[in-house]
Amino acid sequence: MKVKFSSPGKITLFGEHAIVYGRPAIVSAINKRVYVSMEKRDDDFIKIISDLSSDFISINEISNYKGSLIYIIKAIEILSKYTGRKKGVNIIINSEMPISAGLGTSAAVSIATIAAYSRIIDYNISISEIAKLGHKVELEVQGIASIMDTTISTFGGTMYIKPNVTIEKIKIDYEIPFILGYIKREYNTAYMVNKVKSLMNENKEIIEKIMETIGLIVEEGKKAILEKNIEKIGLLMNINHGLLDSLGVSNKELNDMVYLARKAGALGAKLTGAGGGGCIIALCPNNESIKNNICNAIESIGGKVIPILLSEEGLKEED
Amino acid sequence: MKVKFSSPGKITLFGEHAIVYGRPAIVSAINKRVYVSMEKRDDDFIKIISDLSSDFISINEISNYKGSLIYIIKAIEILSKYTGRKKGVNIIINSEMPISAGLGTSAAVSIATIAAYSRIIDYNISISEIAKLGHKVELEVQGIASIMDTTISTFGGTMYIKPNVTIEKIKIDYEIPFILGYIKREYNTAYMVNKVKSLMNENKEIIEKIMETIGLIVEEGKKAILEKNIEKIGLLMNINHGLLDSLGVSNKELNDMVYLARKAGALGAKLTGAGGGGCIIALCPNNESIKNNICNAIESIGGKVIPILLSEEGLKEED
Repeated sequence: MKVKFSSPGKITLFGEHAIVYGRPAIVSAINKRVYVSMEKRDDDFIKIISDLSSDFISINEISNYKGSLIYIIKAIEILSKYTGRKKGVNIIINSEMPISAGLGTSAAVSIATIAAYSRIIDYNISISEIAKLGHKVELEVQGIASIMDTTISTFGGTMYIKPNVTIEKIKIDYEIPFILGYIKREYNTAYMVNKVKSLMNENKEIIEKIMETIGLIVEEGKKAILEKNIEKIGLLMNINHGLLDSLGVSNKELNDMVYLARKAGALGAKLTGAGGGGCIIALCPNNESIKNNICNAIESIGGKVIPILLSEEGLKEED
Repeated sequence: MKVKFSSPGKITLFGEHAIVYGRPAIVSAINKRVYVSMEKRDDDFIKIISDLSSDFISINEISNYKGSLIYIIKAIEILSKYTGRKKGVNIIINSEMPISAGLGTSAAVSIATIAAYSRIIDYNISISEIAKLGHKVELEVQGIASIMDTTISTFGGTMYIKPNVTIEKIKIDYEIPFILGYIKREYNTAYMVNKVKSLMNENKEIIEKIMETIGLIVEEGKKAILEKNIEKIGLLMNINHGLLDSLGVSNKELNDMVYLARKAGALGAKLTGAGGGGCIIALCPNNESIKNNICNAIESIGGKVIPILLSEEGLKEED
């Protein structure tokens, strides 16, 4: 028995970091996905082959696992406990995106793994159970996690998410042309989230007000998206980027890509995700020569251009 | 009869732009000055020789003057009207700072000109009259001007200034080691102030909140200065820089200098002044090798290093 599921990565249009402090964010699934293939084994072992590394481990020892494939192992562990069922499996992972780039690959792999493994163990799981357990995976691995990434990886589309308050789908029936620029991260998400946390602890009043301001940008951003006001979206991205810079989560390489993209004609540009390196998004006017200039600008400082489209597709079973 | 006066330039430690919207700022005089020498002429002409340009004009035609020495001419015009007295003069101007760099050279030259010319026309002017008329010069030339630059050029030292509310001297009896990095400006102060004004008009709630946050930084900055908490001063500079970036007043070159200075070991770095190019200040630990690294970093991207000290000296008559 073989199954294959895929889940999308995401970009944060507005509101990263502030969402950790109860503010809303707007997040979009993108047309780059993580694929998880599974096949039942006759023994109790889990064998994983991914783009980057491989592992072979007994299903009875997964609670002690510390390796690089932790999200996959943790997803299997949590689902096994949740259902009381377990099986040995061969797993193959492929990603169309760089990992640890702020694109939500850990959420995508967790969600697709839960979906595939529930089929393997013959548990009839609901989509909202998948989203909930996916968030639990991130929480247990990272210690801290918003529901943002796992929600988008499960349901796709563009969402306005306010933790513990609301998750609203934002219907986008027109193209918002983004270019993604990627550069290797200096620090991972957990490090950046904790960095902001200690900044908050030591400068509560100032940082709270910055988070409030980001919250306002998210509200205005939602309006601008619904009104198809592309120029306003770009302007709000620029303001949001400066506020992220003030939180200490940008770095020289991200700022270089952001400013060069703007100079090359982007209507707006910001880092996306937790920062400390990783990705920027540049909002492009509908003009091929300007798009080329933006790509060249990103590449001129060693950034990698990843062409993306916003996508409505969430978790999906593959043929 | 010959007289010579000098006035200091300034750096804004915290609060530029927000002060235009009623928030406080902290500004320091620096040990770089503008010198104005004057000598009475026997006719009604004004002859000016400065580092950059020269002019020769009848005192009866100064109200139509549009040249590059406008601050000097305007200072003479305003003082003449104010006192009802006028005289022809030869004027020599020297500056120890680049002009139009956000260092307050226009305020310094206005203040020193008013002091020198009042002596020439034999009007016994008070120091507060000088500050007030100096501000009027900036207002008439620029259309919009805070009292920040002219106050510091007149009185020297470090001041906490909240427009129409308070001007408080902040006593600093220890060295705060700054390095100034300068790069040619793309846009002048008036342009940048107007850019923020239209951003404010179109995004009132968001930009007001950013101004509020800058106001909080200024309050915390004042405490940190009084507590000699250098690391906190640096951190607040970094946050303030991000907020200025969110107002759209930074650019790639300023960000390059800021980030390279931080990477080289600065405890904090921010643009200073109205932005659009111009100056950054980097707060250095007391360590010669780190200071050298910061200077090299600034120069590596074409910035000019200007060594400065904060200064208590305001307007001064020279021998």
